[in-house]
Amino acid sequence: MNKNRQSIRLCKYDYSRAGTYFVTFCTQNRECFLGNMGSIKNNISKKTELVANWQTLMRVFIRPENEETKLILLKYMEQILFGLNSFLKKHVGITEKVSLKELSMRFTETIINKNPEKKLAEVITGLIEDIAPHAVNVASPYFVGHMTSAMPFFMVHLKTIVTALNQNLVKIETSKVVSILEKQVIAKIHRIIYKENESFYNEHVQNAKTTLGIFTKDGTLANITALWVARNSLLASKEGFSGIEKEGIVPAYKAYGIERCVILASKLSHYSFKKAGGILGIGNQNIIGIDVDTNNRINLDLLKKEIKKIKKTGGRIKILAVVGIAGATETGTIDPLQKIGMLCSENKIHFHVDAAWGGPTLMSEKYKHLLDGIELADSVTIDCHKQFYMPMSSGMVYFKSPTIMNSIEYHANYVNRPGSVDLGIKSITGSREANSIILDCALKIMGTQGYALLIEHGIETARKFAEEIKKRPDFQLMTPPELNILTYRICPVDIKKKLSEDNFEQRQSINKELNKINRNVQRLQREAGKSFVSRTTLNIGNKRKEDIVVLRCVIMNPMTNINILKKILDEQEKIYRCYITTSRP
Amino acid sequence: MNKNRQSIRLCKYDYSRAGTYFVTFCTQNRECFLGNMGSIKNNISKKTELVANWQTLMRVFIRPENEETKLILLKYMEQILFGLNSFLKKHVGITEKVSLKELSMRFTETIINKNPEKKLAEVITGLIEDIAPHAVNVASPYFVGHMTSAMPFFMVHLKTIVTALNQNLVKIETSKVVSILEKQVIAKIHRIIYKENESFYNEHVQNAKTTLGIFTKDGTLANITALWVARNSLLASKEGFSGIEKEGIVPAYKAYGIERCVILASKLSHYSFKKAGGILGIGNQNIIGIDVDTNNRINLDLLKKEIKKIKKTGGRIKILAVVGIAGATETGTIDPLQKIGMLCSENKIHFHVDAAWGGPTLMSEKYKHLLDGIELADSVTIDCHKQFYMPMSSGMVYFKSPTIMNSIEYHANYVNRPGSVDLGIKSITGSREANSIILDCALKIMGTQGYALLIEHGIETARKFAEEIKKRPDFQLMTPPELNILTYRICPVDIKKKLSEDNFEQRQSINKELNKINRNVQRLQREAGKSFVSRTTLNIGNKRKEDIVVLRCVIMNPMTNINILKKILDEQEKIYRCYITTSRP
Repeated sequence: MNKNRQSIRLCKYDYSRAGTYFVTFCTQNRECFLGNMGSIKNNISKKTELVANWQTLMRVFIRPENEETKLILLKYMEQILFGLNSFLKKHVGITEKVSLKELSMRFTETIINKNPEKKLAEVITGLIEDIAPHAVNVASPYFVGHMTSAMPFFMVHLKTIVTALNQNLVKIETSKVVSILEKQVIAKIHRIIYKENESFYNEHVQNAKTTLGIFTKDGTLANITALWVARNSLLASKEGFSGIEKEGIVPAYKAYGIERCVILASKLSHYSFKKAGGILGIGNQNIIGIDVDTNNRINLDLLKKEIKKIKKTGGRIKILAVVGIAGATETGTIDPLQKIGMLCSENKIHFHVDAAWGGPTLMSEKYKHLLDGIELADSVTIDCHKQFYMPMSSGMVYFKSPTIMNSIEYHANYVNRPGSVDLGIKSITGSREANSIILDCALKIMGTQGYALLIEHGIETARKFAEEIKKRPDFQLMTPPELNILTYRICPVDIKKKLSEDNFEQRQSINKELNKINRNVQRLQREAGKSFVSRTTLNIGNKRKEDIVVLRCVIMNPMTNINILKKILDEQEKIYRCYITTSRP
Repeated sequence: MNKNRQSIRLCKYDYSRAGTYFVTFCTQNRECFLGNMGSIKNNISKKTELVANWQTLMRVFIRPENEETKLILLKYMEQILFGLNSFLKKHVGITEKVSLKELSMRFTETIINKNPEKKLAEVITGLIEDIAPHAVNVASPYFVGHMTSAMPFFMVHLKTIVTALNQNLVKIETSKVVSILEKQVIAKIHRIIYKENESFYNEHVQNAKTTLGIFTKDGTLANITALWVARNSLLASKEGFSGIEKEGIVPAYKAYGIERCVILASKLSHYSFKKAGGILGIGNQNIIGIDVDTNNRINLDLLKKEIKKIKKTGGRIKILAVVGIAGATETGTIDPLQKIGMLCSENKIHFHVDAAWGGPTLMSEKYKHLLDGIELADSVTIDCHKQFYMPMSSGMVYFKSPTIMNSIEYHANYVNRPGSVDLGIKSITGSREANSIILDCALKIMGTQGYALLIEHGIETARKFAEEIKKRPDFQLMTPPELNILTYRICPVDIKKKLSEDNFEQRQSINKELNKINRNVQRLQREAGKSFVSRTTLNIGNKRKEDIVVLRCVIMNPMTNINILKKILDEQEKIYRCYITTSRP
């Protein structure tokens, strides 16, 4: 009774306050709360003709049109904001087995209603009850196939705030303090990468004329931006030539007396480099893939040879950039950044590091040495929605030189005027939301050490997983984890033995069969819907290379542990046994 | 008493239910609610050493670490989700007058703490109490300077859901149904633009091999994508040449025997076209600005002349695309799309329409005729965060031909394999969030008619405003509104008279003085912080053109009405009077 009495006081108390809380609903909406949510759902789905007029529009523009709607929104928002994990478990990816084809048959209507099709509450309910179950629960600890995973629950709160503020970072007039904050965050991350001294950062952190980096949509745009800057720096204006950005590639090549520009990158480099080559007009065949060594790192000797070969052309071919990878998408491996950096420095070549995946490893005292040499890079890509655990999608690109981004400067009469703090002046995009707020807050909440713990968990769990794979007779570890990514395949012990004995042709035929098996096991496991491991094809082999289909595991979810990974292997074993039994003639 | 009794029942009732609601806090957290929020704030800011370890990390990863934190989050989340308008009014942009310079002095620390700097609740409180007041309240009906405005409150809910689901549209494996939904939404908007027949949409809506358009980050990337596609289509592979994307521009020009590619666009076209010219390697000087007529539309005669002139080069110069604007950024004007479309069709030139701003006008039965001819476009840009009233930032690009995007196709071993539904195959970006969900839901909630009402309100309010400006002796309407954008300037009646009488040199000197006045009035009004009108410089004049500084007004906020606009003019008058009094020698 005492308990109840207190809650009376509470409800009265809060209701009378100026700043209302969710809790005030208990006095405002008692009828609804006393009723059953199910019946509310039934009520709203009773079709009445919906008409768009100014009055109804304004009602739905400003706030929920009625208390029923508010209740529905409240229900889901509470689940999302304060029970994200359970919400996702309950609502997302728990599909009855509906194939993609069947699903796509449900989404074929292409006429938009003139009047509202549904009430707000119905739309939200439909989204969560009917759409979300067929989305993918990327936050599940059993979802270890891609670089998308669970994120701290507060990220959703931060994104909600950023959305509400709706600042546009293209210009100071629509962002004010947020542009300043972004410059600070950029300087903070720059400092982790480049470790310049205090006076360097004092000079540049809020300098309107210099730029240490920029937020982009994702790693692809970060890589494109880096190579765009590299291209423009290489083929800058000089006497009789006003620069590649203005005149274009043909006059640029002519002015510099060259025939071709190339970019050198490991064969394991991200496909965005080819895309960058295409977009930037140098041609994607000029992204030259250098073979990797047995550790899946760029083969330095081959890289040196290639540079030498190109230099022999007497300048007819120019190397626009060399790319080093810090966390290859498929294998998680890290190129020898220090050595590549020195090589680039000797040869005066722009050195770009794609640390979209591995960048945040710099926050781990224990493992940051893996990225030694990154400070030699002229530009660095890091993704926010990867190991910074931020929501889709946000990336960043950093530059060693605070003025190099001037080569991609654009102005307009109404914004981005010279000398302004407008961040849109040097950016591939125009309008852009304030994702920097999220990163800044997350760093304050977790500290570098918080991130380090997440990253170390991934690396160490991956190592344990590799040991487990090696122990199991049906599996073969293909690429051991350097960071938190590894690949393996189903390859039973007797076949392993055969592979080590047979000649190349016989091995090739066995591998073809194994490829088929692994492709199918991966698909069947995905379709079963309990866990997800991805697959890719690696071109490997000591002397003669072969295309090998491998299963790929990315361990970044802190809830993913070795027991879960063992269960994933168990399931694969089971699927494999079932598959070979049923597929035998 | 009866009231209280009911609320006891309510609290008890809900607390015992499986699906908890926000309201359950009234029984759970009575101590906190009975206390004062201020004291909570004081409590949490009492510094205790914060340490990042696995236990605390997991606590903050999954849910608020304690009830105090939950309460703080609850407070702000309720304000944002259910009282967005009041929240923004209360928290954002209500600054004490702090200059940008002063502000920037507060954001200079560049070292990130190893351990958490602050508790979660403190970080969120700091963000809202200390940062947000120095952001810009773009949702204010007095903020009429840029293309960023208020949005329906449910947009924040939708974004929150999208964030929680965290799907990645680059591939079906991290999005499943959402990729299918996106294809449907794209088809819906395509249908509004191109009005193809039912069988066309039945064939393409869920066709994995064809693409009607794509979501991008913003209008700039949409424009770049359109021109990238146009470039690759113009210089496609043919015998002895494997296409510009692969080989690059130099071999492409050689294969086609050309020296230069140009893009023709009105001088009022968005600066992203210059950027596109630069990035794509054709050179931004090859974006040729065609002068506008007295209505600020591209001068068709000049455009025709330019095309003729280029054709006379016998193919040495190729026209990559002609751009038509549907809603110029500075003046809101619309180029004669029908006529440009026919001209392009006759001359077999890619016709791109930049409808980043004006596109959604197609939903208004009353005004869609203004965009007649848009269906002739080979590609169309439309922004979501503009007149679709979606949160920052999201854009789209559409193509008439469902196969033309094949020219920018990229694959990888681990995703985006040929034949898959992976939307990342033909996209400038890689990872990408599910903004299509937001657009789809908003269209269902408001209908095309709901959007039409918003757009019609903007156009009609702008017309009223233009009449008001014409009535006031101190002002001069510079560009009347075709859509919902207009420009004007302070130009007192006696000066107007002088301008009509004097010779060019004298007029020039008067205009210079007026430019200075208008620049200052705009700045002073912005700094006063009550309202915001932007400014730009237009190059106008009947015979001899001059750079004229104008005040620019964008009316898209449904709360902005003629009374508010009158007050904005009143304030400008006041500032002007004060300015000329104090600035006189």
